[in-house]
Parts: sequence; C-alpha cells; structure tokens
Amino acid sequence: MGIIVQKYGGTSVANTERIREVAKRVLETKKNGNDVVVVLSAPAGTTDKLIKMAEEISPNPHVREMDMLLSTGEQISIALLAMAIYEMGYKAISFNATQVGIKTDKAHTKAKIQSINSKKILEELKEDKVVIIAGFQGVTENMDITTLGRGGSDTTGVALGIALKADEVEIYTDVDGVYTADPRIVKDAKKINCISYEEMLELAGSGAKVLHLRSVELAAKYGMKIHLRSSFLPELGTIVKEEGENMEKAVVRGIGHSKNEAKITIVGVPDKPGIAAKIFGRIATENVNVDIIIQNLGGDGRNDISFTLPYTDLKRALEVSEELKNELSAEKVIYDEKIGKIAVVGVGMKSHPGVAATMFKALAEAEINIDMISTSEIKIACVIKDEDLVKAVEVLHNTFKLDNGGIKIEEL
Amino acid sequence: MGIIVQKYGGTSVANTERIREVAKRVLETKKNGNDVVVVLSAPAGTTDKLIKMAEEISPNPHVREMDMLLSTGEQISIALLAMAIYEMGYKAISFNATQVGIKTDKAHTKAKIQSINSKKILEELKEDKVVIIAGFQGVTENMDITTLGRGGSDTTGVALGIALKADEVEIYTDVDGVYTADPRIVKDAKKINCISYEEMLELAGSGAKVLHLRSVELAAKYGMKIHLRSSFLPELGTIVKEEGENMEKAVVRGIGHSKNEAKITIVGVPDKPGIAAKIFGRIATENVNVDIIIQNLGGDGRNDISFTLPYTDLKRALEVSEELKNELSAEKVIYDEKIGKIAVVGVGMKSHPGVAATMFKALAEAEINIDMISTSEIKIACVIKDEDLVKAVEVLHNTFKLDNGGIKIEEL
Repeated sequence: MGIIVQKYGGTSVANTERIREVAKRVLETKKNGNDVVVVLSAPAGTTDKLIKMAEEISPNPHVREMDMLLSTGEQISIALLAMAIYEMGYKAISFNATQVGIKTDKAHTKAKIQSINSKKILEELKEDKVVIIAGFQGVTENMDITTLGRGGSDTTGVALGIALKADEVEIYTDVDGVYTADPRIVKDAKKINCISYEEMLELAGSGAKVLHLRSVELAAKYGMKIHLRSSFLPELGTIVKEEGENMEKAVVRGIGHSKNEAKITIVGVPDKPGIAAKIFGRIATENVNVDIIIQNLGGDGRNDISFTLPYTDLKRALEVSEELKNELSAEKVIYDEKIGKIAVVGVGMKSHPGVAATMFKALAEAEINIDMISTSEIKIACVIKDEDLVKAVEVLHNTFKLDNGGIKIEEL
Repeated sequence: MGIIVQKYGGTSVANTERIREVAKRVLETKKNGNDVVVVLSAPAGTTDKLIKMAEEISPNPHVREMDMLLSTGEQISIALLAMAIYEMGYKAISFNATQVGIKTDKAHTKAKIQSINSKKILEELKEDKVVIIAGFQGVTENMDITTLGRGGSDTTGVALGIALKADEVEIYTDVDGVYTADPRIVKDAKKINCISYEEMLELAGSGAKVLHLRSVELAAKYGMKIHLRSSFLPELGTIVKEEGENMEKAVVRGIGHSKNEAKITIVGVPDKPGIAAKIFGRIATENVNVDIIIQNLGGDGRNDISFTLPYTDLKRALEVSEELKNELSAEKVIYDEKIGKIAVVGVGMKSHPGVAATMFKALAEAEINIDMISTSEIKIACVIKDEDLVKAVEVLHNTFKLDNGGIKIEEL
C-alpha cells in the first residue's frame, strides 16, 4: 500500500497499441492498492527523428535549443498514456519536468537532477490519480528546459522514487533482467535475481547497457531498490539493491563485455610530472570517454601511455593525440581499432585475490592473449582481441560456473 | 527601430528547408534595425498527426491531456528556428508559453489569453537576441498547459504585439493578403491594401479564413495594426487597422462566401416566450456553430425557426432538433444539406441602405434565388443554393466594381 514508481522505456510506448498495454499494466498495480507514479521515455524513434531535424539545420545545434526540441518527445508519451488511462475508466494526470519542478543544473544535454518538488505529485496521488511524469528532462532555476542525456529517464525514475519515498522503482524495458553474461552469446546465461549496486555499476560500465549509470549511482547513494523487468512478460526481473541482504554468496556475479572499442598508444612520452593530466585533460575536453589507461615506464626515461575508448570516438581522439605528440615531443602515436573488453564482476572477490589468477589461467588455456588489465575492488577487466571476445565470454562463464549458481570460494 | 512581431504559420515551418527561409526573413528585419519577436505555429501536419494518435487512444480524449499533447508541435518549430538563426551567426532564444508567462483561463482547447509577462522577452531583446515564442498555447495559474483553438497562433502574435507595444504584427501565411473575393473564383479579384477591423471580422465570419477571428477582435480592441502577407513573396500584403485613416472610400470592401453549409428548419414551433432561447441554448451545448437564424411567424400562432450551420455539424444538430421537436410539440424538422452563403462587406454601407437593394437586384437578374437574408451594419449576407455560389460571387464582384477600386456612393 505504498508508492510504486514505474519507468517504461521508448519501445514500451512506441505506438498507441503499446501505450494501451502500459496503461493496463499500470492499472493492475493500482488495483493492487498501490499509488502509482509512472515515468516515460519518448516513443521509440522520436528522439532520433528530432535529432535528425536538428542536424539538418545545424551541424552543431545550440544546446539549450536542442533540449527544448528533445523534451517534446516525452511530453507526447505522457499525454497519450493519461488519455489511455481515462479511457479505461481511471483518473490520471501528466506532468512535464517544469510543471513538477524537476530542478537540474544548467548543463544542457547532460544535466544533473538537483531536487524534485514532490508536493504536487503527492496531492494528485491523494486525488486517486495515476501521476505520469516526463522522463529524461529537467528545468533550471531560470525555467530553461534541460535533458539528462541518453537513458536519463531511468535516472528520473530513481530520483522520483527517492523524493517520494517509494517502496521501489520498477524499470520496465525490453529485456527481462540482468544476466550472468549476454544471453545472445552464452546460451546457459542465467538471469540474476539480485545484484548489488556496485556490481551493477561495474557490469554496466563493462558493456551491460541495461540501466543508465547515473540512475544506479543515485539509487546506491540513497539505498533505493530498483527492479529491472520486462514490459512484455509478467515474471520478476532483477533486483538491484544494497549488498548483502538476502543476496546469494557468489564470488563472481556476472561477466560483462564490449566490442567496438579501440586503443591508442602515445609512444615515448617524456617522463615528467603532470604529463598524464595534460593528455587526459585535453582528451576530456573533446568529450571522448576514455576507459582503461595504462602507463609503462620505459628504460630511457620515457613512457608509453595507452588508453581505450569507444571506436566511434577514435578519429577525434587520434587528432588530439597527434597534436599532443607534437607538443610533448613524444615519438609516435599508434592505435588498434579492433579490441574487445571483458570483465568479471562480483563483490565476493573483494577479499579473494584468487579470482584474478583463475581468470588469467582460463584465458591462457583458451589461448586468448591479454593485452591490458585493469582492476577495481570488485572487477577484473582485460583488453583482448575483439575476435576472441565470444570465446572469452563462454570460457569465463563456464570457469566461474555461472550457469550453476557461481563458483564458491573454496573451489578457487 | 521598434519592436516587430512576426507570426509564421505551419506551412512556413513545414520542414527544415522552410525554417531556414524563415530565419533569413527574420534576420532581414533584424538587420534593418528592428527588435524582432517571432511567433510560430507547429510544422504543417504535426498537429493533425498528434490528433490522430489521440483519437486512436480515445474517441473523446481528455482535454487537459490533449493540450499537453498538442503544445509539443510549436515547441519543435521554435527550437529549430532558434538553431537556424544561431547557424547564421545571430543570437536567438525560444520560449514556450509557460516560460514566458502567456497566462490563459482554464478553458482547455479553446483558452483565452488573460495576460503576458513581457519582462523576460524585453530582457532577451536587450541582449540582441531574436525572441521566438510558441504560438497557439498558454498556461493557467496552476501551470497546466492550454491551447487557444485552431489558428490560435495569430492571436498569440497579436497579444504579444499589444503586450510589447510593437509597431505592428506581421502575419505571414501562404496567401499574400485579403482579396476582394476568393481569387480562385474571381480572376479579377484584387488584393485589398487596407481593411478595417470590422470589415475583416465580417469577411472572416463570411468565409475568408485568412485570420483567426479572436486575433482580429483583440487587435481591434487595442488598435494593434496587423499586416497580413505572404511568407514566400516580398510584396506588402493587407493592413488591418482602424477604420478611416488613409483608407480608400469604397462602399463595399469585399465579398465573402462559404460552401459546406447546411440549414435546419423546425416547423410549427408554438409561439411562446423563451422558445428560441431553449432551442439555441441546447444546440450550443453540442458545440454546433449556428450562423444565421431566422424566425417566421405563421398565421396559426406557430413559428418556423430556421438556422444555418457548418455541414460537418449537421448530423449532431439534427439529432438535437428532433429531440427539441418532440419536447416542444413542434410539427417536423426539415433540412437542406446543400446551401451556400455569400456576403458583401464594407464600412461604407453604414449610412447607405442602397447596397442591399443593389445586391438583391444583381442576384435576381442572374436568376439566383435568395433563401435567407441576414444583415449587420456593415454586411449583407444571403443564403443561396450552393450550386449558385460561384456565379453569385462573380456577379457581385462585378456589380460592386471590385476589380476597379469599388463602386462609389453616387453610383448606387
């Protein structure tokens, strides 16, 4: 009998038929005695169409106006869903971010939510209405419309859950949960019933693109439970929550991987303080999302600095790297446009260094060469050839017995 | 060197190519030293598409949600135009009705503007920006989004002109002005350079659908000059302003006509006080737009009550009329679904009753039968067979010498 926040993605509201299905699902939850707050994305395809129009007009559209443009998509979804709920005999009301006071900073196209005024929403819930809110968008103090970046509706959902002290935030999508590995690659991949915020963040950062990173960070900060599930199936999906509490004790929770990565190495960089800061500061201003960074000290007082990045950013990053090479009097820039990244993730490995050894051994036995290694407390990531990626996922899924509840500590 | 408000309709912003053309036109005005405020409609076709989606979901969509939905169309146009202006090296900023405080009453889908907060607009003009505002929409005190009804962007333009004390409001459309008759029918029809508010209202009410009625009423109330002109041609169009001032002294300014009208007669209504109020009160609740009403007292203490209405409302109005017939013990309901309406309009006829006689005589000589007559101070309207309409327009255009400056009083 609490408040439930349900977020539906673009494919769930792609057309009027699907919007009616969402209305039915929302009303089922309502009939079970819950107050329901719904967050919607724009209908699938709408945002892309708007971006295309903007790009026809300007190769580099003004960001404030871009947000003005893009925020229309969600407003269409929310109005249509409210109509559908009325048509089914219940009451509803839709709000855009401005109306409901989803305040953000001024960083257009990638704004961060600062506060939400829950008063209006709570008043409408008291009137027995389903409250439907435009995801992805916010408003600045100056009443300018902002957007939160691709996937930002997940973050709107979590932020609303926190502001309304909801029991949980249900995120409906076109997959039915988080898997131990990509089920399109590993046919024995199992749905994970429960995963910690940290693990989810590491998996998401390693290629499992099921939840917007910011939304998980926000949920972690406030301990808001996320239930990731399918819009089209009735089954429970994956719960993302605090570590520990009723969670299965697996050493490795899942395996993430990503293709379409590239690697750049600036060879022979003079070994002076502040060089790395200079290189990555410059690359960051180009909005290139650098992932793994490795620096090798050579014998001659020079370093090789390598980093991985999305393939789509390669061209831009190479231009900057060439400039940096000249400025820093480095030797040369080399790159590899066909690398892959694989990561094993699990809170169980915090105190068990044996996981890394097991992983490297399994890859070696499968004759997969490791190019770079990066670790966190709960993740070990390796850069390998992209042609080895599928085999690596299968081998590691098997090694860590993820088709069967996961390997136990004593088995390592 | 004052403020000019320019309103562009949906065909002028139908695609990105046309939006660029609007940007050029706006910047020409700006380069001439004016501050420019632009009001835009939704891209042509957008509103119809949104209405179709709503109707797929609900045969009678919730009006608040309908306004939420429809207001997205203008927001797309204004953002794209702002981008186009930036791309041409100038500054611009777009505002929806909420951001700029276009306050209306709560009558969703047909709201009336109550006030506009000009402060924000004036501030942005001082920053040398072109200010671009979403037409057609408003916001209630409670922050709900409203719309002003079809064609409402004209009204937004005029209301902004008044609030900003603009020199004039330019309304850009796909015709180049108001004509002495529909130029598709009368090949000698002449563009009217100057027309009074009253004449424009009567012509618009008689079928010349070039300006939203409310916008002319509003302009008349505050004496705001409207310049109606083509988006695609450089020539001056038609100025709508106070009567008198530099205006040509024609008896008849123009001829309006409309097809697709129907007529209903309730025959044998008992002649009692309050009957007409009852009939038209009931019909009004059905949102049927009754135009001409005529009541004939029969010899037997019974009346025949006839009225004209748009053909599209005929079915609904007939149902109500049948109910009323039974309640009032009238004899029967008859109707004619093929009538036309023709009207001659001109302030010059205020003190010259000869116009009516000239009109009736001309129609009689052309063997066009007059079914109903309705007059105002500056208009004489006749209901005729719709098949006679084209001929009637040609005959009257000729009779009143509208191809040649208009008939003079002494010629009547």
